Amino acid sequence: MTRNSPKGDSAVESLLAEYRDLTLTRLLTGIPTGTPPGLYELIRSYPSRSSKGLRAALCLATCAALGGDVAKALNSAVAIELAHNAFLIMDDVQDGSELRRGAATLPAEYGLGVAVNVGNATNLLALQQLMANRWILGPSLAWAVLQDSFEMMRQTLEGQAIEVGWIRNNACDLVDDDYYRMCMKKSSWYTCIHPCRVGALIAEGQREAFTRFDRYGCYLGAAFQIQDDLLNLTGRFSRYGKEIAGDLWEGKRTLVLIEYMRSCSPDERQRMEFFLGKTRGERAESDVRWVRDRLIESGCVDIVRARAQRLAEEACAEAVQAFSDVPETRDKRFLIELPFYMVERDS
Amino acid sequence: MTRNSPKGDSAVESLLAEYRDLTLTRLLTGIPTGTPPGLYELIRSYPSRSSKGLRAALCLATCAALGGDVAKALNSAVAIELAHNAFLIMDDVQDGSELRRGAATLPAEYGLGVAVNVGNATNLLALQQLMANRWILGPSLAWAVLQDSFEMMRQTLEGQAIEVGWIRNNACDLVDDDYYRMCMKKSSWYTCIHPCRVGALIAEGQREAFTRFDRYGCYLGAAFQIQDDLLNLTGRFSRYGKEIAGDLWEGKRTLVLIEYMRSCSPDERQRMEFFLGKTRGERAESDVRWVRDRLIESGCVDIVRARAQRLAEEACAEAVQAFSDVPETRDKRFLIELPFYMVERDS
Repeated sequence: MTRNSPKGDSAVESLLAEYRDLTLTRLLTGIPTGTPPGLYELIRSYPSRSSKGLRAALCLATCAALGGDVAKALNSAVAIELAHNAFLIMDDVQDGSELRRGAATLPAEYGLGVAVNVGNATNLLALQQLMANRWILGPSLAWAVLQDSFEMMRQTLEGQAIEVGWIRNNACDLVDDDYYRMCMKKSSWYTCIHPCRVGALIAEGQREAFTRFDRYGCYLGAAFQIQDDLLNLTGRFSRYGKEIAGDLWEGKRTLVLIEYMRSCSPDERQRMEFFLGKTRGERAESDVRWVRDRLIESGCVDIVRARAQRLAEEACAEAVQAFSDVPETRDKRFLIELPFYMVERDS
Repeated sequence: MTRNSPKGDSAVESLLAEYRDLTLTRLLTGIPTGTPPGLYELIRSYPSRSSKGLRAALCLATCAALGGDVAKALNSAVAIELAHNAFLIMDDVQDGSELRRGAATLPAEYGLGVAVNVGNATNLLALQQLMANRWILGPSLAWAVLQDSFEMMRQTLEGQAIEVGWIRNNACDLVDDDYYRMCMKKSSWYTCIHPCRVGALIAEGQREAFTRFDRYGCYLGAAFQIQDDLLNLTGRFSRYGKEIAGDLWEGKRTLVLIEYMRSCSPDERQRMEFFLGKTRGERAESDVRWVRDRLIESGCVDIVRARAQRLAEEACAEAVQAFSDVPETRDKRFLIELPFYMVERDS
C-alpha cells in the first residue's frame, strides 16, 4: 500500500496519539474502583488495549478547530470512547467473537453474564460523564449533548439491526446503496457524525448549524468502515488484532461481498448463497478460505479499495468546505487529512 | 396459602390493573413503527405478554398519594417499565433462559444478535421518555428524574454483578445479609425504591426528602424477590410463566439455598457444593430434582416464606409511617397493603 503523504500522515498520527492519550488517561481515572468484583475493573479491559482513540480525537479536534476549549469537551470525548467500548463488548456478545484488540473478548474469557454486565456498566459510565457536563457546560448545552448521544445510539442500534437482519434472512440481493445506508447508521454516526456534532456544540455553545459536518462524517465513516472490512479480510493478525476473515465466519454483508455477489458467475453465486445461508457453526474453514480467496482473486477487493479512496477524497473535500471559515490550525489540518489516514491504515 | 385480607388484596389488584393498563397503553403507543425490521416491533414482545405492571403502579400511586398529578408521572412510569423490560431481555441473554412470561425468550427465538439489539433499543426508549419529561416537568425536575434513573441502573448492575460473581466463583458460604444486600441492589432498587422516589419527586417538585420511602422500598423489594424465588421453586408453570426450578439450573444463590446450605448435614453440603460447582450444561435433571426436593422437605422453604411475611409486615409498617402525613386515599391504602399482595401472589 502506498502512502500519498507520509508527512501528512505522521501529523495526523501525532495529533491522534495526543488526543487519545489525553482522553484515555481521563477515562481510566474516572472508572470506579472497588466492589463488586467482576464489574468495574473489567471496564478497564478494552480501553487499556491498544486503540486509536479516533472518535475522541474527532470530537476534540472539531472543537479546537472551531476555536473551542478542548478542556470543556474532554468529558464528552471520554463518554464517546466509553460508548464505543460498550458497543464493542455488545458486538462481541452478539457475534460470539473470540478476539478483540489482540486478546480474548470479555464473553470468551468471562462468559455472557459478566460481559453483558460490563457492557451495560460501560455505557452507564458514558451517560454519567454526560450528566457531569452540567457543571462544565451549563444545563442547556449539557442537555443538547445528551440528546445527540441518544440520537447517535438510535442510529447505531438501527444500523446493527439492519446488519443482523441481513444475516438472519440471508439477504443475497443487496446493492451498494443498501450497504452505505447501513454503514452510515452502524458506523458513521457514532464514529464520526456524533463526535463532530458534539465538538461543534461545545465550541459554539449553540445548536445552530451543529450538523454542518454531517456529510463529512458520513463519507469519513464509510471510508473507515470499508477499510475495516478490508483489513478483516486481508490484514495481518499481529496488526489487526481480530480474527482474520471473522466477517466471513459471521456472514457479514460487506461491500466486497456485495460487489462479488453481483459480478460472479451463476455457479459461484449459487455456492455463495449456500455458504451465506449456513450458520456460523455450520461453516467449514475450507469454505471460508475459498470465499476469501475468491473475493481477492476476482479483483473485488481492489475495486472496493478504490471506492474507499474516493470516499476519502470526498470527505476531504467536505472538510475543506465545511471548515473554510476557520483559521488554519493543526486541528483543521488533522480533520482535512484524516480521511487519507483512514483508508491507508493497516490496523 | 391463606390470604389475610381478601378484600384488601382485591383493592390492591384493582388499582394495580388500572395503573398497569394506563401505563401499558401509553408504552405500546410510544414504540416506533417501521424499519428496520427486527427491532421496534420486537420491543413490543415482552410488554405485550401478561404482566403486573408493579413498578409503574408504585410510581403512580406514590405520586398520587402525595397529591401529585398522575398524568405528569405517566412518562416516567412508562420509562420504568421499559427499563424493566430491557433488564428482562438482558437477563435472558445472560442466563440463556428459554421461557419468559409463558412464551419463548427473545434470545431463544431470534438469537443473541437480535435480542441484544432489542434490549438496548428498549433501554434507549426508556431514556428518550425521560428526555421528553423536559416538556412536562421542566428542565430541572426532568434532570433530577434522569439522574435517579442512572443511580437505579448503577445499583441494578452492581446487584447483577454480585449475583453473577457468586455463581462464577461457586460461593458456598453466604449468609442472609449477603443475600439481602444483593437483593436490595438487584431487585429493590429498580422495582421499588426508584419508582417511589420518582413518584415523590414529581408530586413534590423538589429533591428534598424524596428518599424518605427508601426503607419501604427496600423491605418491599426483598419481600417481592423472595416470593419470586419461592415461585420459581414451587410454582405452577401455567401461572408463573418461567421454567420451574430455573434458578437451580442456573445456580442462583437464593435465600432458601443459603438457609439450606447452613442447616444441612455435612454429606448434603458436600453434594450441594459439587452440584453448585458445575455449569448449567453439566447439571443433570435428577440432581436439580434432588436439590429442589431437599429444599422443600428440609423445611427451608417454609422458614423463608415466614421471613418474606415478616418483611412484608416491616414494609407495611414503614409505609404507615412514611405516609402518615398525607390523607387517606386509595393510593395510600394500595401502598400500605401492597406488601401482603407481594408475598401472597402466585404469579
